[in-house]
Amino acid sequence: MSGGDLTHIDAGGRATMVDVGDKLVTARRAVAQGTLRCAAATLDAVTGGTAPKGAVISTAELAGIMAAKRTADLIPLCHPLPLTKAVVVIAIDPALPGFTVKATIATQGQTGVEMEALTAVSVACLTLFDMLKAIDRTMVIGDIAVAEKTGGKSDWPD
Amino acid sequence: MSGGDLTHIDAGGRATMVDVGDKLVTARRAVAQGTLRCAAATLDAVTGGTAPKGAVISTAELAGIMAAKRTADLIPLCHPLPLTKAVVVIAIDPALPGFTVKATIATQGQTGVEMEALTAVSVACLTLFDMLKAIDRTMVIGDIAVAEKTGGKSDWPD
Amino acid sequence: MSGGDLTHIDAGGRATMVDVGDKLVTARRAVAQGTLRCAAATLDAVTGGTAPKGAVISTAELAGIMAAKRTADLIPLCHPLPLTKAVVVIAIDPALPGFTVKATIATQGQTGVEMEALTAVSVACLTLFDMLKAIDRTMVIGDIAVAEKTGGKSDWPD
Amino acid sequence: MSGGDLTHIDAGGRATMVDVGDKLVTARRAVAQGTLRCAAATLDAVTGGTAPKGAVISTAELAGIMAAKRTADLIPLCHPLPLTKAVVVIAIDPALPGFTVKATIATQGQTGVEMEALTAVSVACLTLFDMLKAIDRTMVIGDIAVAEKTGGKSDWPD
Amino acid sequence: MSGGDLTHIDAGGRATMVDVGDKLVTARRAVAQGTLRCAAATLDAVTGGTAPKGAVISTAELAGIMAAKRTADLIPLCHPLPLTKAVVVIAIDPALPGFTVKATIATQGQTGVEMEALTAVSVACLTLFDMLKAIDRTMVIGDIAVAEKTGGKSDWPD
Amino acid sequence: MSGGDLTHIDAGGRATMVDVGDKLVTARRAVAQGTLRCAAATLDAVTGGTAPKGAVISTAELAGIMAAKRTADLIPLCHPLPLTKAVVVIAIDPALPGFTVKATIATQGQTGVEMEALTAVSVACLTLFDMLKAIDRTMVIGDIAVAEKTGGKSDWPD
Repeated sequence: MSGGDLTHIDAGGRATMVDVGDKLVTARRAVAQGTLRCAAATLDAVTGGTAPKGAVISTAELAGIMAAKRTADLIPLCHPLPLTKAVVVIAIDPALPGFTVKATIATQGQTGVEMEALTAVSVACLTLFDMLKAIDRTMVIGDIAVAEKTGGKSDWPD
Repeated sequence: MSGGDLTHIDAGGRATMVDVGDKLVTARRAVAQGTLRCAAATLDAVTGGTAPKGAVISTAELAGIMAAKRTADLIPLCHPLPLTKAVVVIAIDPALPGFTVKATIATQGQTGVEMEALTAVSVACLTLFDMLKAIDRTMVIGDIAVAEKTGGKSDWPD
Repeated sequence: MSGGDLTHIDAGGRATMVDVGDKLVTARRAVAQGTLRCAAATLDAVTGGTAPKGAVISTAELAGIMAAKRTADLIPLCHPLPLTKAVVVIAIDPALPGFTVKATIATQGQTGVEMEALTAVSVACLTLFDMLKAIDRTMVIGDIAVAEKTGGKSDWPD
Repeated sequence: MSGGDLTHIDAGGRATMVDVGDKLVTARRAVAQGTLRCAAATLDAVTGGTAPKGAVISTAELAGIMAAKRTADLIPLCHPLPLTKAVVVIAIDPALPGFTVKATIATQGQTGVEMEALTAVSVACLTLFDMLKAIDRTMVIGDIAVAEKTGGKSDWPD
Repeated sequence: MSGGDLTHIDAGGRATMVDVGDKLVTARRAVAQGTLRCAAATLDAVTGGTAPKGAVISTAELAGIMAAKRTADLIPLCHPLPLTKAVVVIAIDPALPGFTVKATIATQGQTGVEMEALTAVSVACLTLFDMLKAIDRTMVIGDIAVAEKTGGKSDWPD
Repeated sequence: MSGGDLTHIDAGGRATMVDVGDKLVTARRAVAQGTLRCAAATLDAVTGGTAPKGAVISTAELAGIMAAKRTADLIPLCHPLPLTKAVVVIAIDPALPGFTVKATIATQGQTGVEMEALTAVSVACLTLFDMLKAIDRTMVIGDIAVAEKTGGKSDWPD
């Protein structure tokens, strides 16, 4: 890894949306993951009687999908891409304790969709936080990273 | 902490934007924090010659401020609030190694702005990730939490 | 009812966002309703085994809430309002056959929220349509109207 | 029509934006229609002296076009598509009495544009409602349906 | 005029959305103006038979109103404000030759609406440009400035 | 130049988003320019000690890039296009005195990107205005025009 090549900064130190016009249109896919850590009792509330698992988790999954479509509106130098697929899966993990969030995004485009996947995970985590903050002040969002990226010049992991 | 009171879920298990119409309009303020962990060499690139610290960091700070204003568009059950202040401060922390991100948001409103602060931190981290992903595949966004919240019925921390 | 007073059209025939600056800030509330008529078999699919009622209906309810917050972006002469409450309830009505959609919106503001309630109902119906169009070509959205409006100079119904 | 295939719901009952990455890019076109029923006197106001037909109707037509471009922002599981054409035509129908709204949308894409056409019709109707609500409390939006859809695997009507 | 007080830049040289939480909520109003200069023949086309003055001008006026509502989304450090009034008036000026655009915006808020008025004028000019660019390559947008601002600590002009 | 062909107005005088579905997908590029004229002392403030040139200018450059991506949301009859490049360069020109703004936009699409370039310039100028309005009431935005356009049926300049 060399540090001399920040693609979004031009020779004059200016932030730009780099030219991808010469890159190939290929089927691109990315997977990102993250977690919301919380109190064990919070998981009980989500899975318990009055608080159906469906409402909390499905709201956050949907928020993640919708956010993926708005990535280029949020990340200043991100290219707009017509997504062809977006899935967000949230699971309860008692061992954390907390939630694991995984987003899979695909497009036919000239640049990758890892930022869309990361945005979906981030907003899904924020939505879980919003719905649970009245009962838990210990929550932390973290572990957000790219798990897989394919279809570009270089794939993650190699 | 009791688990029986998920404010956004009604008795029928339906997600709703809860009624805050009877809450007082008060000066509310929230601070959220987070980190982007990266390789030490990535920090060198950001602070080094060709890659001015200003461009990477100031782009991410600005993205965070703009995202704070769009929180209610992204988080399904969040109330729209006219923010009166938004500041995002990103610092380089060689000990992580990585970046620390801190957002301070204020409003005069009927509900708190912790989701706006968390959204600002999240999108600032995503923007850093976007600008550095070409040189570093080890980055992880994390430690996103509310540091402080004032002006409501109950403050964080107590 | 007299026809000579189109509030959004000025003396020169120009569309404008009318001045509500002198109106009182009051607690305003509106309820709107609508239906999506479909084949009886479509209802069976939604309530049947593989297609959980929750996923179709809760997605549409959430879409309605989120759309309510964007009403002023969609309706050109609508005033932006900070909503204090938004609830969308969708029920299956075998007698139609179809779905009934009801939205309740509240604000503290200088103008009513009936357009927000109507927008929530419309987008909830559109979302149901989107999720069911692969199995039903007979669907019709209709009966969208204001059921109740309070808090302004004149209430509906009287 | 079989009811077992809700395309937006996965095997686990989760709402997803389905993968259209393998579908062909074809010229796709859709037409949707709808009505706003109102009092006969309301039509007189719209066509009468002080309230030029142009301002009310042209505002609603434009709102419909702009809404079509934002369909994927409003409908959670809708794919974003770069529209190549959008026309909304509103006509006065004294027999209803009311307005008929017709939207024609086209794209070169991997999925159809019937949701964009329906969204254009819905928002055009909502905009008419907004501009006329001060003089008419009897208005009802309805009859919103797909009139024609071409360019996909299966066309409407057959 | 002293140059030492850039309100949006903090002591560390960072762009921020400044705190207006302590400012009074007052009735604020701003007027901005601008022009689109074009060929004389372009004005003929707009006022001539096949090209109704209404369609070109009313589309641009509406675009200006809608853009005013989105000012805080576009201008990074602008505070979101619930506008109470928005009017855009476009006139043909054969002497320029071209169009004059004037926007009047009002709010009840803690900060002024001159940016909203300037944004309305700018987007109205851009919309005129878009509709006329097929027949005129000489167009120039200019003369965009604040004509009047009232309701704040200091008014324009004094 | 003939005046009889307003592309966005149909035979009935209605504004429409014209059909570009039959146009070729080509590499398209546009450059637009503009200026913000201000007092000489304002330039001193921007380049002086406490007000780093970077913060004011880089904020406005970024705002221009982000606005370019939202052009189709702002200009009613503009086609949405997936931009492949966006660069905004702002320079201080003591001779004006003021700032010159230049935007370069590219896409692979069926229609040109001159409106995206003009929108980027306009919003960059508005952002400069916003950041400097506290110290200068003499500012005027102007000279906004297309400098170059390539990739379509007809290029600017010829």
